[in-house]
Amino acid sequence: MATLLVLFRRPQDTAAFERHYREVHLPLARKIPGLRSLRVDRTVGGDPALREYHLVSRLEFDSLEALRAALRSPEGQAAGNDLAQFARDGYKILQLEPLPGVDAAP
Amino acid sequence: MATLLVLFRRPQDTAAFERHYREVHLPLARKIPGLRSLRVDRTVGGDPALREYHLVSRLEFDSLEALRAALRSPEGQAAGNDLAQFARDGYKILQLEPLPGVDAAP
Repeated sequence: MATLLVLFRRPQDTAAFERHYREVHLPLARKIPGLRSLRVDRTVGGDPALREYHLVSRLEFDSLEALRAALRSPEGQAAGNDLAQFARDGYKILQLEPLPGVDAAP
Repeated sequence: MATLLVLFRRPQDTAAFERHYREVHLPLARKIPGLRSLRVDRTVGGDPALREYHLVSRLEFDSLEALRAALRSPEGQAAGNDLAQFARDGYKILQLEPLPGVDAAP
């Protein structure tokens, strides 16, 4: 598994931002080929340095290759273009791969 | 579900850091009451601003209340004390809750 982690900076208008996220961005993101799961969370606590981020989304793919191919796909580009439009207050992305030697089980 | 996201700053000695994470910190973290799943990933790409983080761990709990109770528990405190010792290069924490109105399904 590989994960695309997207941290969205706290927007000026939270309600409008969340509405666009749900109604426009999410349907685009769900079309991305190879997407295995998608979660979106709000930050509700933590270090002030990271509380500048309002939403955190996690997109899972079978592998890092699948993740990177997904970003290059037309559907990935469409989702990325929407991101650049609506997340004007900024966002940051991380690509993650499991640390070797650690079971996913709790 | 609620998530504790821990971002570990890139350590000076990556191999020693990962060894301590696997051999000492993970067994402590897995004793935390109410923990439903634990994943640990390495950053392998993304924005330079976030590439200062080397590892990202995700601990899942049934609810935000369960997460916060877990942090206050003796096992949570023990894991936190170990964190303060070995993650001397720094770490940041976020507490996350699902954005209402979004299905977890892909």
